[in-house]
Amino acid sequence: MKKLVGAALLGQSGGPTSVINASAAGVFLESLKHDEITEIYGAQHGIKGILDENFYDIRKEDVEELERLKYTPSSAIGSVRYKLKDYKKDPTDYNKLLEIFKKYNIRYFFYNGGNDSMDTCLKISKFMKTAGWEMRVVGVPKTIDNDLAGIDHSPGYGSAAKYVATSIMELYLDATVYNTQQFIIVEVMGRNAGWLTAAAALASVGGVKPDLMYLPETPFDMDKFYNQVGELLKTGKSVFVVVSEGIKTAEGKYIPEYETEIARDAFGHANLGGTASVLANHVGEKFGVKTRAIEFSLLQRSAAHIASQTDINEAFKVGQIAVKKAINGTTNKFVGIQRVPGDKYKVKYPLLPLKIVANAERKVPLEWILPDGQGLTQDFIDYALPLIQGETKLEKVNGLPRFAKLNKVLAPKK
Amino acid sequence: MKKLVGAALLGQSGGPTSVINASAAGVFLESLKHDEITEIYGAQHGIKGILDENFYDIRKEDVEELERLKYTPSSAIGSVRYKLKDYKKDPTDYNKLLEIFKKYNIRYFFYNGGNDSMDTCLKISKFMKTAGWEMRVVGVPKTIDNDLAGIDHSPGYGSAAKYVATSIMELYLDATVYNTQQFIIVEVMGRNAGWLTAAAALASVGGVKPDLMYLPETPFDMDKFYNQVGELLKTGKSVFVVVSEGIKTAEGKYIPEYETEIARDAFGHANLGGTASVLANHVGEKFGVKTRAIEFSLLQRSAAHIASQTDINEAFKVGQIAVKKAINGTTNKFVGIQRVPGDKYKVKYPLLPLKIVANAERKVPLEWILPDGQGLTQDFIDYALPLIQGETKLEKVNGLPRFAKLNKVLAPKK
Repeated sequence: MKKLVGAALLGQSGGPTSVINASAAGVFLESLKHDEITEIYGAQHGIKGILDENFYDIRKEDVEELERLKYTPSSAIGSVRYKLKDYKKDPTDYNKLLEIFKKYNIRYFFYNGGNDSMDTCLKISKFMKTAGWEMRVVGVPKTIDNDLAGIDHSPGYGSAAKYVATSIMELYLDATVYNTQQFIIVEVMGRNAGWLTAAAALASVGGVKPDLMYLPETPFDMDKFYNQVGELLKTGKSVFVVVSEGIKTAEGKYIPEYETEIARDAFGHANLGGTASVLANHVGEKFGVKTRAIEFSLLQRSAAHIASQTDINEAFKVGQIAVKKAINGTTNKFVGIQRVPGDKYKVKYPLLPLKIVANAERKVPLEWILPDGQGLTQDFIDYALPLIQGETKLEKVNGLPRFAKLNKVLAPKK
Repeated sequence: MKKLVGAALLGQSGGPTSVINASAAGVFLESLKHDEITEIYGAQHGIKGILDENFYDIRKEDVEELERLKYTPSSAIGSVRYKLKDYKKDPTDYNKLLEIFKKYNIRYFFYNGGNDSMDTCLKISKFMKTAGWEMRVVGVPKTIDNDLAGIDHSPGYGSAAKYVATSIMELYLDATVYNTQQFIIVEVMGRNAGWLTAAAALASVGGVKPDLMYLPETPFDMDKFYNQVGELLKTGKSVFVVVSEGIKTAEGKYIPEYETEIARDAFGHANLGGTASVLANHVGEKFGVKTRAIEFSLLQRSAAHIASQTDINEAFKVGQIAVKKAINGTTNKFVGIQRVPGDKYKVKYPLLPLKIVANAERKVPLEWILPDGQGLTQDFIDYALPLIQGETKLEKVNGLPRFAKLNKVLAPKK
C-alpha cells in the first residue's frame, strides 16, 4: 500500500454518549504516532465545522488531557445534527468539502456517530473517489441506542445500560420504602429500539425486577396495561414500571400523541408531557394511587461517572483501529465490534462496509422480549451483562470528576 | 450511671437518603457490642411498625450484610410518614407505645429522621418519663434537605450534593454540545431550603457554572427571570438554569401554582407539571428556543453509587455514637455534627437537646446567595465542598452495586 501523507480530521456527530470522547482519544492519540499524518484536526460541530473551516488543532493539546478524554462525557469538540443531501441532487456541500479537503490536504477523515453519520461517511467517500481526491474515510460507530446494524453492540450503549440498571436498582429501593402504595414509572430513551429500556432488566442480576417493562418493538396495548397495573395494585404493594419513550399503540401512535387526541376530544385541550408522565397521570386518575414519573433524560447518556470501563476501552479501541487501518489503506469502511464465540467475553474489531450500517436500524430480537411487559429473556441478560462490566477510571479532584480540559486552539484558516 | 438492661429499637422515618442505612449500620453494629442490649430490633416502617409490633430481629442478620448497609440507599427496614399527635390532646398512640415498650422491655429507642422525627423522639421521651418507664431516647439526624437546626450539616446532604454537583457537570457538557441554542433547566429537591440546589454551585469547582440558579430563600421574580433569560439567549449560546422545586413568587406562590392560576384565567385549564417544566414551557413559547426540563427526582436521594464517603462515615458515626451515649445514660437528645474550626475539615458529634431541632428549619444564609440568580458565594463553596469528598467503597458484583441483603426475620409477637 502506497504511503498517503496528509492531515487527519475527526468529526463528532449526533447525540452525545459517555464515551464518544474515548473514541476521539483513540483517533487523536493514535494519529500522533504516525508520520503519515501531518496535522490532526478536530472539526468544531462535525460537518458544520468542516464547511465553516473551524478546525481545532489537536497538536496544541496536552497529551494528558487527550488521555482524559477517555473519561469525559459528551462531544468535546462539539456535535451537530446535519444530514448531507444526495450529491446527485445537490453537490454544493460536497464541492465545498472537496475544496476544503484539498486546501488543508486532508487525507484521513474519521467520523464518529450513528447511522446518519455512517451515511455521511459513505456519501463523502463516494464523492471524493469520483472527484479523484485520494483519501481514506473510516466511520467510528457510537450510540446509546445500540441500533447500529451489522455489529454486536455500539460503543456508548454499555455505559448507558450500566447507568440504567444501577439507577433502576437504586430507585426501586427508594420507591418501595413506604408502607403506602405508589405507582412509579421510569422513562428510558430509545425512539425505535428498546435496547436501553431492556437494560433495566439487568437490575434483576442485582436482585431488583421491575414489575412491568415495555419496549417499542412490540405494540403497546393501553387497556391491557391498565388491567395489568390494576391487578398489581390489588396486592397492596407499590408498582414499578419501566417504559421506553418510543412505545407505540398498535396504530403506530406514540403515547403522548395518542393521549393528546383522547384528551383533545374529551376536554378540548392537549395533555402535554412525556410517555411516562402521561401514563402516570392516567394511572393516578384511574386508580387513585400516588404516582411518580421519572425521566432519565440527558442523564442516561452523560453520566460518565458510572461509565462501563469495558465500553470505554472498546470506544477507545474503535477510534484507534480506525486510524491504524486507514494508515494501512482502508477506506469506505467503519470499525465494527464482533463478539468472539466462547465462554469468556471477548470482541474483535472487523472493518465493515459502511452501507450495511448507513440508515439501517437494528432492534431488540422479538424472541428476547417476554410478552405482557414481563421483561427480557436470559438471552438478553447474557448478551448485555458483559457490556456493563468494569468501573470507570475517571479521576476525581475535590470529590468531583476531573474531565478533560482542552485548549481548543483553532487552526488558522487557509 | 446505673446500668440499664433491655432491648434496643431503631426506626427509620421520612424521605430516604443514600446514607440513612449507614446510620442504621452504626446503631446495629454498635448495639451488638454491648451486654446491656439484650435484643436489637428494627421497626418495620418506623412508628407504624412499632404500633403494629412488627420488629425485625437484627440478631438474625449477618454482620457482613449489616456492614453493607453503609453503602445501601433508602431505608432498609422501611420508612414512614407519621406524625404523633400531642399526647395531652390524644394519648392513644402513646399508651400503646408504652404497653409495647414494656412488653418487649425496650429501653433504648433510636429514631432516624428529620425535624419531624426529632419531634417524635421529644414527645416519646417526655411521655415515657412522665409514665415512669425508664428508657433512653436518642435521635439520629438525616435529610438531604440539610435543613436541621443546630447542626453544621445533616447526614444525607453530602451525598445528595455530590450527586447534584457531578450531574450538573455532566449535563452541562451534554446540553451545550450542539451548535444550536437550547434552554436547559434542572429542578432540584428542596421545598423550603435551597441547600441542595445550592450544591449545583459546587460544579464551578469542576469548571462548570450554571448561568442562573434560584433558591427558595429569595422570592422568584418571573418578569426579571424572563428578562435575564432573554439577555442570555441574545449571546447565541445555550442557557443552563438550576431551580429549586420550592421557589416562590413574592406573593408566596409556588411556580406551578402561580402558573396554574394564570393558565386557568387564560385558557380555562390548569398547566400541570413541576417548576422546571412550567418555566421551560414558558421560555419556549416566549423565545421560540428549544427547551429541556430535567428533574433529578428520586435519583438525587438514592444514587448511592456516587455517595460521599465523608457523608457515609459521618452517618455511620451518628448512629454509633447514639448507642454509645445512650448506654452511658444519655436520653432526650440527638447526635449533632459540629465543625471543628481550623484549616482541615474535622467534625465532632455533640449531644444536643431535641427541642432545638424539632420542627425547626434552617435555611441557606441570605448573605451566601448572590442576587439575580448569580449563584452562591465562596463562603458556601467553602462550607459544602468538604462534605462531598471521598468516593464510596460500595462493592460491585457483575458491574452492579452489591447492596445489603437482609434476612428480615420478624421477631415473634409477645
